[in-house]
Amino acid sequence: MGGSGEANGGAAARVPMPPARPFLDTFRGNLKETFFPDDPFRSVVRERGAGRRTLAALRYFFPFLEWAPAYTLGAFKSDLIAGITIASLAIPQGISYAKLANLPPILGLYSSFVPPLVYALMGSSKDLAVGTVAVASLLIASMLGSQVSATENPALHLHLAFTATFFAGVFQASLGLLRLGFIVDFLSHATIVGFMAGAATVVCLQQLKGILGLNRFTTSTDIVSVMESVFSQTHQWRWESVVLGSGFLFFLLVTRFISKRRPKLFWISAAAPLTSVILGSVLVYLTHAENHGIQVIGYLKKGLNPPSVTSLQFSPPYMTLALKTGIITGVIALAEGIAVGRSFAMFKNYNIDGNKEMIAIGTMNILGSFTSCYLTTGPFSRSAVNYNAGCKTAMSNVIMSVAVMITLLFLTPLFHYTPLVVLSAIIISAMLGLIDYQAAIHLWQVDKVDFCVCIGAYLGVVFGSVEIGLVVAVAISILRVLLFIARPRTTVLGNIPNSMIYRRMDQYTTAQMVPGVLVLRVDAPIYFANASYLRERISRWIDEEEERTKDNGEMGVQYVVLDMGAVGGIDTSGTSMLDELKKSLERRGMQIVLANPGSEIMKKLDSSKVLELIGHEWIFPTVGEAVASCDYVLHSHKPGMVMDSAAGHENMV
Amino acid sequence: MGGSGEANGGAAARVPMPPARPFLDTFRGNLKETFFPDDPFRSVVRERGAGRRTLAALRYFFPFLEWAPAYTLGAFKSDLIAGITIASLAIPQGISYAKLANLPPILGLYSSFVPPLVYALMGSSKDLAVGTVAVASLLIASMLGSQVSATENPALHLHLAFTATFFAGVFQASLGLLRLGFIVDFLSHATIVGFMAGAATVVCLQQLKGILGLNRFTTSTDIVSVMESVFSQTHQWRWESVVLGSGFLFFLLVTRFISKRRPKLFWISAAAPLTSVILGSVLVYLTHAENHGIQVIGYLKKGLNPPSVTSLQFSPPYMTLALKTGIITGVIALAEGIAVGRSFAMFKNYNIDGNKEMIAIGTMNILGSFTSCYLTTGPFSRSAVNYNAGCKTAMSNVIMSVAVMITLLFLTPLFHYTPLVVLSAIIISAMLGLIDYQAAIHLWQVDKVDFCVCIGAYLGVVFGSVEIGLVVAVAISILRVLLFIARPRTTVLGNIPNSMIYRRMDQYTTAQMVPGVLVLRVDAPIYFANASYLRERISRWIDEEEERTKDNGEMGVQYVVLDMGAVGGIDTSGTSMLDELKKSLERRGMQIVLANPGSEIMKKLDSSKVLELIGHEWIFPTVGEAVASCDYVLHSHKPGMVMDSAAGHENMV
Repeated sequence: MGGSGEANGGAAARVPMPPARPFLDTFRGNLKETFFPDDPFRSVVRERGAGRRTLAALRYFFPFLEWAPAYTLGAFKSDLIAGITIASLAIPQGISYAKLANLPPILGLYSSFVPPLVYALMGSSKDLAVGTVAVASLLIASMLGSQVSATENPALHLHLAFTATFFAGVFQASLGLLRLGFIVDFLSHATIVGFMAGAATVVCLQQLKGILGLNRFTTSTDIVSVMESVFSQTHQWRWESVVLGSGFLFFLLVTRFISKRRPKLFWISAAAPLTSVILGSVLVYLTHAENHGIQVIGYLKKGLNPPSVTSLQFSPPYMTLALKTGIITGVIALAEGIAVGRSFAMFKNYNIDGNKEMIAIGTMNILGSFTSCYLTTGPFSRSAVNYNAGCKTAMSNVIMSVAVMITLLFLTPLFHYTPLVVLSAIIISAMLGLIDYQAAIHLWQVDKVDFCVCIGAYLGVVFGSVEIGLVVAVAISILRVLLFIARPRTTVLGNIPNSMIYRRMDQYTTAQMVPGVLVLRVDAPIYFANASYLRERISRWIDEEEERTKDNGEMGVQYVVLDMGAVGGIDTSGTSMLDELKKSLERRGMQIVLANPGSEIMKKLDSSKVLELIGHEWIFPTVGEAVASCDYVLHSHKPGMVMDSAAGHENMV
Repeated sequence: MGGSGEANGGAAARVPMPPARPFLDTFRGNLKETFFPDDPFRSVVRERGAGRRTLAALRYFFPFLEWAPAYTLGAFKSDLIAGITIASLAIPQGISYAKLANLPPILGLYSSFVPPLVYALMGSSKDLAVGTVAVASLLIASMLGSQVSATENPALHLHLAFTATFFAGVFQASLGLLRLGFIVDFLSHATIVGFMAGAATVVCLQQLKGILGLNRFTTSTDIVSVMESVFSQTHQWRWESVVLGSGFLFFLLVTRFISKRRPKLFWISAAAPLTSVILGSVLVYLTHAENHGIQVIGYLKKGLNPPSVTSLQFSPPYMTLALKTGIITGVIALAEGIAVGRSFAMFKNYNIDGNKEMIAIGTMNILGSFTSCYLTTGPFSRSAVNYNAGCKTAMSNVIMSVAVMITLLFLTPLFHYTPLVVLSAIIISAMLGLIDYQAAIHLWQVDKVDFCVCIGAYLGVVFGSVEIGLVVAVAISILRVLLFIARPRTTVLGNIPNSMIYRRMDQYTTAQMVPGVLVLRVDAPIYFANASYLRERISRWIDEEEERTKDNGEMGVQYVVLDMGAVGGIDTSGTSMLDELKKSLERRGMQIVLANPGSEIMKKLDSSKVLELIGHEWIFPTVGEAVASCDYVLHSHKPGMVMDSAAGHENMV
């Protein structure tokens, strides 16, 4: 701060009081900044006439109205390729994840038919490929399974899954409508990295059931009980399925490796799952391996999604369970979907409106829950394939759902002999991609706290449960924010020779103290959470400075300049803190001086009468000026200083 | 920001990278700043030799070792007067509050005997007068009463009260020992104002039982059920006790009014409660009013505190209840005690170590729970009397406890005929002082959010329960902090003519934009909670500026200067936000420039490789410099600007 600029008296030398605005105006302003920071309806409001406005509004809620009219054959070609590619991935993945959620495999296909169509109409991302995700599937299984067994009461379990999906959709959509999108932001990047890795680990562990061909398996997801149930039944392990599973897993990993090395060959890894499904099915069909301990999917019903509106459960006993499941899975699905949408939008340099996306994803899940689909969002793996396959618009989702529709109508019998172990292999190979250890290393290098958040989430998920991991991570993150507020950094500023600039002494080694003046900088808003800390910390700064000067026989502290430049806000605890500080400094014969307070601060100081108490004459736009005027009063015996500040004045003529 | 100072190239023109410190050092440093900001053991460490150090340590934990040796007869005289004054207040108040807590009245006297002695040894406040408080008493009654009836099972209720006190003490002391004092700071001033007023209202409502001479009364504290139980038994109302009660209430209020007007006459209001107790007792004794529906205290056991260690309940059924009660009441008592201690310390200009106080108050309650005392702290009313009576040291507490001891040994029979209605009157008159409506008005004038917090606490307490009120208030307060982080203010900075200073356009009307350069200031740390908001908000600033310039046919935005001066911290989400911002601006052909980042920020930017990406050459110590160099590259066609910045340079030779 500081600089000879303001020294030339006049308007600039005063810290202006912002013009008083009626309470309602400021209130409305704050409300807008809080809930409509992106000013979503600008495009609508700009239009003239009711008709054109409704059209703009429609375009806002149904983005396809924007690209559909200008849709070209070239774009369609690329979308066609992309759509078929992701369909070939969606079918096996869908079945696998449905198994993971302890739901009938066919639901995986249903869920890849309706939701993509809805998203194609309402979604604003060009690259998002809609489908079910492993983590949410696992969560549904574990949360619902805790109260309703999928094996003993499959119908109820299924209906609760639909209900949870419904609630998830309602929750997501209402978050968007209420402009509460920022709630998702509280799942920090670090949280998601750790959480995803943990979930992937857990999912892989669950696959041991399929790989080892076990019939009984624990319902809980933590590593301890999984290991127990695995090693408690070693005699049940099936070497056939182990061999088959590891074989396909190896194949899938090799293809992923190749595609990673050569992005051009993305289709190899994209087609690999379907290939292995076909290979596996054929193999089983020829060898009749289903009779030798290889479990297969079995009969899949032909036909499109049956309606499921009537099977939604709104009756007391299980409704709360469905609600809880819906909200938790909804948030997680939302976080992944929006993160994926944003990151691809960044590559192609277009904007994603978070709240709008929420409404789209929410609607897609609500309608899904009416048509026998369970929770869907935009999975990273599938969207990445979609992006690499060169999709141009959301049309690729339509293509995919058409492909899935054809499968549902005619091809379901082909999956009868598909061995479960192959699905397990597919899931594992997909999950391993989610364990992003490099990101964790990056976190450690950049920010230790974020690393703790990440590890906390990971361990919480792996050793506790998905919910525990989530809670741990969010708790640490919020605690960190609160700690930042509760323990703001205060630093001593020093003068940079031959200038009126003041900089942190610990950062700028050239900076020097001004005798008799202690310049302190507060780096956070002054709130109730840190007011009393700041009071004590500041008085400690003063004490230490007093000691130092006494030891060196220098001039003691006469002026305490507080640089308020970085103080973004202040509340009543803050103002009364300044009040007390002023009084206690007065008793010690020191003068408090404020530099560069913002309009917000000025307003508060004025209305709390602290401004009067300190006196307008002790408030300056810059530290440079503040110190200069203290200096004059002190008749500083350090001519250099006076020279400089004098120079500072002449400069500006 | 800005200033020709740095323009003279060389060292000052670079933003220095802070010297790399080993992780453990920074970690230790942060730990110290977080938990030992006041550096409590400085005095101990400064001493030479083990003996003198232990002495210093003893002095730290037992402050009386500091003042006792230098204690003078003059000081003793003032302390004697103060002590007797507060004793005359403590005896009736103690009995009243014990009744309020549904505990035997004698406990009020016990609790004014042991704890003051402990505090005199360990407390660092000279003005705090120890005793029981109405709010905590009410809380104990309501929380314990919810599960154990004081009338049906008095013994258990009593033992649970001791246990709760024990837990409260342990909790308070451990907060102090673990240096977690700042937790109390999260009860903001606004919270306490609203909470206290609400509690006072509730307590007054409870007194309707005594005033109306009712036998049955609701156990719940909310206004609705109290009013119900009052008006459901109008036929039970006793006009005698109503008359007596209102009479004494009037008397007490008049004395309080007088003392308020003439602080010299503090003793009038201080002596009033004891006077009314004596008057009331004599009146009842003469008129035998106890037979006409005036309830009296009845038999009080002679003798000092009996030990109560054995009656502490650590057995499952009720332990959790006692624990919960202890923690909640403990925090509230702590908040009041420390607030009181701090405010009086400010008047006399000495310092209170919050954590040390917690240890003192905690120990006092632990030992209290062993000697038949219940929760004590430093009540505001009593401490104020103590202060006005001119106390010099904690000795006044000793005097008080001696006076109480004498009462316990010889004078308890005198209270046999004391009418309960007088105690109710005493409580009400004390409570009315706690309803600080002026503070609420002040809150409204200064900070609307704080006002909401205050009202939220008040309504929560009055219509819900004390706990609900607390939760509401703390929730609003924390939400406010989180919102501040989630929605930081970003402002456009403009150049102040004929200088290189840049100030907020909305505050400084003289400030002007620099063509082709958009200067933005971020007013908060860049954390996961606001990273994506900031990205969107900044791009919106740019869009709007682009539109404006296009409409006016001015030069479009070429440079976006981010003033990081007020950015106190950054995490990985923040760094990756800057990363993305840089990339997306590049695509739009704009250059991002950082001004005045702190050492913390520089470190993070460096370790996250964002510094490389942006390039050292685009990081400047001040906005002035940043814009100046952009200007040169732009070959700005606005000579004025170049002139200025050039001038800025010449100035500094």
